[in-house]
Amino acid sequence: MKHFLNTQDWSRAELDALLAQAAEFKRSKFGDQLRGRTIALVFFNPSLRTRTSFEIGAFQLGGHAVVLAPGKDAWPIEFDLGTVMDGEAEEHIAEVARVLSRYVDLIGVRAFPKFVDWSQDREDRVLKGFARYATVPVINMETITHPCQELAHILALQEHFGTTDLRGKKYVLTWTYHPRPLNTAVANSALTIATRMGMDVTLLCPTPEYVLDERYMEWARRNVAESGGSLQVSHDIESAYRGADVVYAKSWGALPYFGNWGPEKPIRDAHKHFIVDEAKMALTNNGVFSHCLPLRRNVKATDAVMDSPNCIAIHEAENRLHVQKAVMAALAHQ
Amino acid sequence: MKHFLNTQDWSRAELDALLAQAAEFKRSKFGDQLRGRTIALVFFNPSLRTRTSFEIGAFQLGGHAVVLAPGKDAWPIEFDLGTVMDGEAEEHIAEVARVLSRYVDLIGVRAFPKFVDWSQDREDRVLKGFARYATVPVINMETITHPCQELAHILALQEHFGTTDLRGKKYVLTWTYHPRPLNTAVANSALTIATRMGMDVTLLCPTPEYVLDERYMEWARRNVAESGGSLQVSHDIESAYRGADVVYAKSWGALPYFGNWGPEKPIRDAHKHFIVDEAKMALTNNGVFSHCLPLRRNVKATDAVMDSPNCIAIHEAENRLHVQKAVMAALAHQ
Amino acid sequence: MKHFLNTQDWSRAELDALLAQAAEFKRSKFGDQLRGRTIALVFFNPSLRTRTSFEIGAFQLGGHAVVLAPGKDAWPIEFDLGTVMDGEAEEHIAEVARVLSRYVDLIGVRAFPKFVDWSQDREDRVLKGFARYATVPVINMETITHPCQELAHILALQEHFGTTDLRGKKYVLTWTYHPRPLNTAVANSALTIATRMGMDVTLLCPTPEYVLDERYMEWARRNVAESGGSLQVSHDIESAYRGADVVYAKSWGALPYFGNWGPEKPIRDAHKHFIVDEAKMALTNNGVFSHCLPLRRNVKATDAVMDSPNCIAIHEAENRLHVQKAVMAALAHQ
Repeated sequence: MKHFLNTQDWSRAELDALLAQAAEFKRSKFGDQLRGRTIALVFFNPSLRTRTSFEIGAFQLGGHAVVLAPGKDAWPIEFDLGTVMDGEAEEHIAEVARVLSRYVDLIGVRAFPKFVDWSQDREDRVLKGFARYATVPVINMETITHPCQELAHILALQEHFGTTDLRGKKYVLTWTYHPRPLNTAVANSALTIATRMGMDVTLLCPTPEYVLDERYMEWARRNVAESGGSLQVSHDIESAYRGADVVYAKSWGALPYFGNWGPEKPIRDAHKHFIVDEAKMALTNNGVFSHCLPLRRNVKATDAVMDSPNCIAIHEAENRLHVQKAVMAALAHQ
Repeated sequence: MKHFLNTQDWSRAELDALLAQAAEFKRSKFGDQLRGRTIALVFFNPSLRTRTSFEIGAFQLGGHAVVLAPGKDAWPIEFDLGTVMDGEAEEHIAEVARVLSRYVDLIGVRAFPKFVDWSQDREDRVLKGFARYATVPVINMETITHPCQELAHILALQEHFGTTDLRGKKYVLTWTYHPRPLNTAVANSALTIATRMGMDVTLLCPTPEYVLDERYMEWARRNVAESGGSLQVSHDIESAYRGADVVYAKSWGALPYFGNWGPEKPIRDAHKHFIVDEAKMALTNNGVFSHCLPLRRNVKATDAVMDSPNCIAIHEAENRLHVQKAVMAALAHQ
Repeated sequence: MKHFLNTQDWSRAELDALLAQAAEFKRSKFGDQLRGRTIALVFFNPSLRTRTSFEIGAFQLGGHAVVLAPGKDAWPIEFDLGTVMDGEAEEHIAEVARVLSRYVDLIGVRAFPKFVDWSQDREDRVLKGFARYATVPVINMETITHPCQELAHILALQEHFGTTDLRGKKYVLTWTYHPRPLNTAVANSALTIATRMGMDVTLLCPTPEYVLDERYMEWARRNVAESGGSLQVSHDIESAYRGADVVYAKSWGALPYFGNWGPEKPIRDAHKHFIVDEAKMALTNNGVFSHCLPLRRNVKATDAVMDSPNCIAIHEAENRLHVQKAVMAALAHQ
């Protein structure tokens, strides 16, 4: 039984099939691929966009989504084996996942890092716990990666360029300022999928401390080796933007300061000029701009960039609906 | 593309058609007017009645409602253009409304005033922001007016009187006591729709400070000019009730004290006798009583009034379901 | 009109019919018994399992569930008649139940005790208030009893033993330790249904103070008189387990300390050895083990017991879906 935890677990042919099915759903939105089927959407962290697109996607395919949102704080679930559960946790993931699997046909899980200890968070224990004990397929709705966003992003690029072949495009993933240190999930994902698609990828960030976790850097290097394309890290805005076909922006916290964010703030504050603006976009090859949303206007990108015809962020957000329907349909019929 | 923000934006013929369709749905509750369609119900303030009636209404017409409830506190959305979003807001209404519009066919919005500055709240920025940026129709689920309640109320009166023509009825909108200063939305709406229907309307309130915002007083005067009927403000309980055909009760805060409610409390406390009781109802022309609910028994109206056969509050509440189905169906097929 | 408030209100033949229908739904999960019907699930206390199983059950039968979760704290509703509602309550149960009844075909209610005054909580006022004023059938989704769990439990036992006749089985309901004093609902229910089914029932608990409320002890005695079987209370672990066919575990607070839980803690803490472990299960007649979940592993039962093939807790949890579909179908077609 296949889960959808990371695109890296899926073959390129499988990903291409998902993208093709998503494009088909975009042309014709109804289907019966989930007729009578159900999906539990388990949100350990709140969501509006993800929840709406999954819930509506299930409905349009004849299914039904149950939204379980234990609240902003973590649901007290035990993930370790053998523990004497006399603390906060009222239930073990073994029971949670097994019981849910008796009720539903699919389980989606959103679980952000706790931002205290990256060595813990990078284990992705909530998602992996569900995948281990569930007897139905599990979908990653964003944990420390965001594979649904990856597919939506790539579909938007394919639409923009009018081709499914993105090889040779110059792709810039640029860090941007945000008042708080954010999850690296979308950055990890952008790096993963952009290299997978064979693009020439530049990770642009303020300092070496903003380079992503070695797991994702390694995935990217492996992808480059297999798909062609290239990978480089840059701290120089001008050279990174020059000639770019794609600019994808995201803010994230520097991992060396994980859980001890105080000293990161002055570095972050010193790089507000990483904002995506018209001057930078003018350096590109009439580049397309996108972002996963939500986006703080005039902090991450200027109004002019957001309101430009080259901004495809809204299309990418729409594509979440289409790609997730493709993922649900594929997992329900394996 | 037409929204349903206020009844005042709709022609009398259009409103009559909505009411007729609602009456038809009351006789026969299923339909396929929303087959495969979806509506996002965005609740900036909590709701049980509105949420239930919209969600069930969508289901009975073949559609599906997604309930988005960001919590009791305001969802941090930016509504101004050109702002550097380095404060609380994580997203601009332009993106929120545009993305939702890609997922759903209709958007309902509930957003109460913040009760700090009426000059701000009277701009109805959340609702208008959605209407401005959404590319699908927007429905007011109560902001500073409550047009769905208006239609439910009028349908209940039409049923009670056995006629769709309410001209010539003596209609009293009476303020009642409540421990806290409440939203003027339902009062604004009652005044608007009662005058629209050509009734002889009396706004009964403790002092001139409880008169409603000039916008709605002006709408009421315009309606009287167009529909016949009349409008008067009264602070005298006995003359207001005498001969009334309809008594509609609601509590609200006096606008001059908006955001500085302390000095309003003694005025409010001095008018607990505005409670709707049998003695007052005995002055009426066998008048019908209603209220939008929730209602504090023996504070706003006595048990005897609530449990009287002349109380149609439960019918009016039921009618929310029927009129909202009519509104959704009309907006989805324009 | 029949509600489903307690199994004790239903005849044995009716309960058997529900169980048979549930078994049928387990074999074939789709139906149109709720085609176009709706159910409001009113959660005064949070839930994931109950909510998921009811919502999916309604969907699989063609209906739609609306989930109303006013939050962890009690929704301020007035239950007394004649009160001047100038306190916290914004609405009377008479209006809440009547209005909901206009929208939906069924109402489910979850309302736990407040744990302050058992003489109050034992009146089950929320559930009874809904049943009194609603004009549609009401389902108990766990208040001070949990009749849906009862049916799921019995169905799981019938499956395990391969017969619907459970007479003569030795059934042990054992108290177990939990860090906090919990609701007696599932214990009350287990005692009620186990005696109803004619089993030889032992209530095993640390001290006489943990005996259940006299109402449920009386139900159990009446059931024994009518169904055969037997009832005894024991504080001796070894004799209680010896030869048992069924071990059902649950933790609950001792009623004499209700609302004044401090002095109960040392008693509770002194009985952690009530944990269900392999040594105790070895005393049984190859007994089956179950629990309503959630369960703290290695506090209420050991990993070895939970992971044993004789543990049917997951099957019982699954059965919630099937029995609730049977209950909804029966109530919707009476």
